[in-house]
Amino acid sequence: MKSAPRRANPNQETRPAGRPVSASRTEMVEVVLPQDANPLGYILGGRVMHLIDIAGAIAMHRHCHSHAVTASVDHVDFRNPIRVGELIILESQVNRAFHTSAEVGVEVFSENYVTGERQHTTSALVTFVAIDEHRQPRPVPLLIVKTAEERRRYREAGVRRKVRLAIRAKHKE
Amino acid sequence: MKSAPRRANPNQETRPAGRPVSASRTEMVEVVLPQDANPLGYILGGRVMHLIDIAGAIAMHRHCHSHAVTASVDHVDFRNPIRVGELIILESQVNRAFHTSAEVGVEVFSENYVTGERQHTTSALVTFVAIDEHRQPRPVPLLIVKTAEERRRYREAGVRRKVRLAIRAKHKE
Amino acid sequence: MKSAPRRANPNQETRPAGRPVSASRTEMVEVVLPQDANPLGYILGGRVMHLIDIAGAIAMHRHCHSHAVTASVDHVDFRNPIRVGELIILESQVNRAFHTSAEVGVEVFSENYVTGERQHTTSALVTFVAIDEHRQPRPVPLLIVKTAEERRRYREAGVRRKVRLAIRAKHKE
Amino acid sequence: MKSAPRRANPNQETRPAGRPVSASRTEMVEVVLPQDANPLGYILGGRVMHLIDIAGAIAMHRHCHSHAVTASVDHVDFRNPIRVGELIILESQVNRAFHTSAEVGVEVFSENYVTGERQHTTSALVTFVAIDEHRQPRPVPLLIVKTAEERRRYREAGVRRKVRLAIRAKHKE
Amino acid sequence: MKSAPRRANPNQETRPAGRPVSASRTEMVEVVLPQDANPLGYILGGRVMHLIDIAGAIAMHRHCHSHAVTASVDHVDFRNPIRVGELIILESQVNRAFHTSAEVGVEVFSENYVTGERQHTTSALVTFVAIDEHRQPRPVPLLIVKTAEERRRYREAGVRRKVRLAIRAKHKE
Amino acid sequence: MKSAPRRANPNQETRPAGRPVSASRTEMVEVVLPQDANPLGYILGGRVMHLIDIAGAIAMHRHCHSHAVTASVDHVDFRNPIRVGELIILESQVNRAFHTSAEVGVEVFSENYVTGERQHTTSALVTFVAIDEHRQPRPVPLLIVKTAEERRRYREAGVRRKVRLAIRAKHKE
Repeated sequence: MKSAPRRANPNQETRPAGRPVSASRTEMVEVVLPQDANPLGYILGGRVMHLIDIAGAIAMHRHCHSHAVTASVDHVDFRNPIRVGELIILESQVNRAFHTSAEVGVEVFSENYVTGERQHTTSALVTFVAIDEHRQPRPVPLLIVKTAEERRRYREAGVRRKVRLAIRAKHKE
Repeated sequence: MKSAPRRANPNQETRPAGRPVSASRTEMVEVVLPQDANPLGYILGGRVMHLIDIAGAIAMHRHCHSHAVTASVDHVDFRNPIRVGELIILESQVNRAFHTSAEVGVEVFSENYVTGERQHTTSALVTFVAIDEHRQPRPVPLLIVKTAEERRRYREAGVRRKVRLAIRAKHKE
Repeated sequence: MKSAPRRANPNQETRPAGRPVSASRTEMVEVVLPQDANPLGYILGGRVMHLIDIAGAIAMHRHCHSHAVTASVDHVDFRNPIRVGELIILESQVNRAFHTSAEVGVEVFSENYVTGERQHTTSALVTFVAIDEHRQPRPVPLLIVKTAEERRRYREAGVRRKVRLAIRAKHKE
Repeated sequence: MKSAPRRANPNQETRPAGRPVSASRTEMVEVVLPQDANPLGYILGGRVMHLIDIAGAIAMHRHCHSHAVTASVDHVDFRNPIRVGELIILESQVNRAFHTSAEVGVEVFSENYVTGERQHTTSALVTFVAIDEHRQPRPVPLLIVKTAEERRRYREAGVRRKVRLAIRAKHKE
Repeated sequence: MKSAPRRANPNQETRPAGRPVSASRTEMVEVVLPQDANPLGYILGGRVMHLIDIAGAIAMHRHCHSHAVTASVDHVDFRNPIRVGELIILESQVNRAFHTSAEVGVEVFSENYVTGERQHTTSALVTFVAIDEHRQPRPVPLLIVKTAEERRRYREAGVRRKVRLAIRAKHKE
Repeated sequence: MKSAPRRANPNQETRPAGRPVSASRTEMVEVVLPQDANPLGYILGGRVMHLIDIAGAIAMHRHCHSHAVTASVDHVDFRNPIRVGELIILESQVNRAFHTSAEVGVEVFSENYVTGERQHTTSALVTFVAIDEHRQPRPVPLLIVKTAEERRRYREAGVRRKVRLAIRAKHKE
């Protein structure tokens, strides 16, 4: 690993040239509107999931320069609720590229613009499959990891992928 | 278990009277519109998550007759894509009630109205917390399970809850 | 009529095979959101009409497995108002198939999830024309009626059709 | 009729001062967007109904200067379909004021801005009830009719009201 | 000027036949909904801009019977705020046609239907370019001005155009 | 100017403590959807204006920690069109704070995720007024400018404000 720090997966030489994590990094911000919320004024969990998927898809698009579809979303915990009139901020980046798919991490925060207070709402991991115009899977560029944080995410994404494949295999039995 | 088939959780006597699974059962159907889809005409995964949360919340409301907020969504796999113009059908019911929360199961199908073909898209498990008007957690009625299928879901929901609590405890360490 | 209880219209043998009423039956449920309501918090009549048309169109699609356009909506009375945060439930089924059109019945209910109370809001009758991809009318499958209730609706839909045709003829004079 | 041309209903003297038909006259125009249409590009009948209700409600508001709810919509025939990208134009005015309700007429047209062609799509009659802030019915101002056309509409609205009341009475039996 | 009052731009004879200002005149009205407003209940400035562009585009379409894209919007001042539940009314017409573009004027009013009060919110000037199906600019019909008011607008639009072209030239330097 | 580089407006000492430009900096990204576009697939100018206002308002909120309303939008030129399926990116920050208002600059870009190409679409300058809960104007914190670029924007915003005030005064004459 040490001798090739910038090449995440040296076995996939025929794939499109790699791109750094920074190329996929995306920040979205939205004002929470009444139609996003329940009658008590809390944003709906499903609306948050919707935005997570969009923020994740944009990071995926920026990495692989192609269409993509959502393959799976890992377990999501909603910690701090978000209220109407607050900001919802989503930060996403590709954690690891596989053959035709990639794992994208999305961090969600709320920000109250009157108090200026910012809270962490949830972390999500979304897997996307890159597809071509005929809706067939296509290769994803390698991910070039640079910082210690990026390497940690890359390593952990590999572990999580094995868990996901094991679970899927078990479901098919 | 056999001696008390209609009382799911005999330790929580002071809670509101139990309700059967059938009282929470919900069916939603929607036509997939262009604004729900990507440029290739596939529904966005986030839109499906949004609908899963709504279908789940309605089942939760019907069971506990109160407001509720989404606490978590378990891992979701998207198997068969849904296209613009197709129907998306969501079926939900409460799987198990805990003290102030409950697990709701949601099955998602697509239906092509020209061919009549129906496909299973995904299964999701959403946990909601019941809240009162001051946004404080409040007790959830017992769930009365009747059929073998309902009992199986009830049992498995208990196992999954333990896993969720263990993961959350580990995150807090 | 008695000797052929399951064949609704024996003269149209060349049409696609008949389908039972149950194949078109549709249930939709939605949470009423602020944007569906006036400033007093009541759902707009036009929003209810919109949902009636969608619920009716899905029943029509399920019966005829083709595209369809709305031809007419009979007089609709709004009896009990629906409030923001309540559920609106729509149940629809084909009442009778004609040559290239069919009458669909839609029942609308509100449900208050805090009190659990359910109220009947309105009944509507929508006529759809089946069309092919060139936007030309195409034959609709026969409707197979089985229960006394289905037969009553079938009979009454025939009477209503004559009234509609008479009114339309008068308008063209 | 000749001796009191400007006072439509002389028995209701204690009601708010009358307003002329022209005060309620409303013109709406919208571009038909993809989300308003089915996969063949035709506007949904339910969307047209939605806009009819809004155009009617604005005319009602302008006449009675109060909140209002939709009480009923008479039979609506959809004659000429409207396509995505075309304009939909709605013209509405109060036809006749009753004690706490009024009948509003709405004419719907499509306009193709490339060809400039304008087509009549449908005519609708919507009855609204005026309500106060406690959601109780409140008196509606008299309608002052001036032209022959306004008088014709006024007279026919009276006939239609009797038919509606008779039908409603029959339903309650 | 006096000898050719109906021909706005006599040098452009080969263009499509001229159309009078009245042919482009458009009136839109909408009820301001909660999703159009900030938490204090005021319509968002951006929503007003959105509606100004739509009202302007419809006037442009009606004048040139073709597709069009927004080229620029002049400085807009928001004077009187509009509240949820009020009406927003937009009146637009073409002020002057140039070779492949035209300036459209849009007046915005609010109307409170309870008090009946009407207020002027803003005036806007939007320039559109007419385009064909290949997205290339295409000639715009001459504008036929008839009244003194139309002639004043026509004249002033010519002055403004020179200012816009000067500013754009300076930006490119 | 040199002796007090971090205090933008030294005369307004009683106002809330100043905030740096970086505190207001906002990045928004959205996928352009079919409902944002005309039939040729170009985003509507009005939709861009809508997003400019939102991105600007968030920067304003972040600077002044209060509600705000749009006071004016300076002339906007649309240079490069944006297509359905592309990304629209908006970057905003406060340029200069005045007594109860501030000028916010918004840069708009499109990004094609298949080609990776990024284009500048437009620059906009929006003035917001900070308001309290009773909808009265309230003081805006000083803006602390640090870089040469921030100082340039600050200086130019002062010039533009004088032009705006002069134009407004002339309109009132």
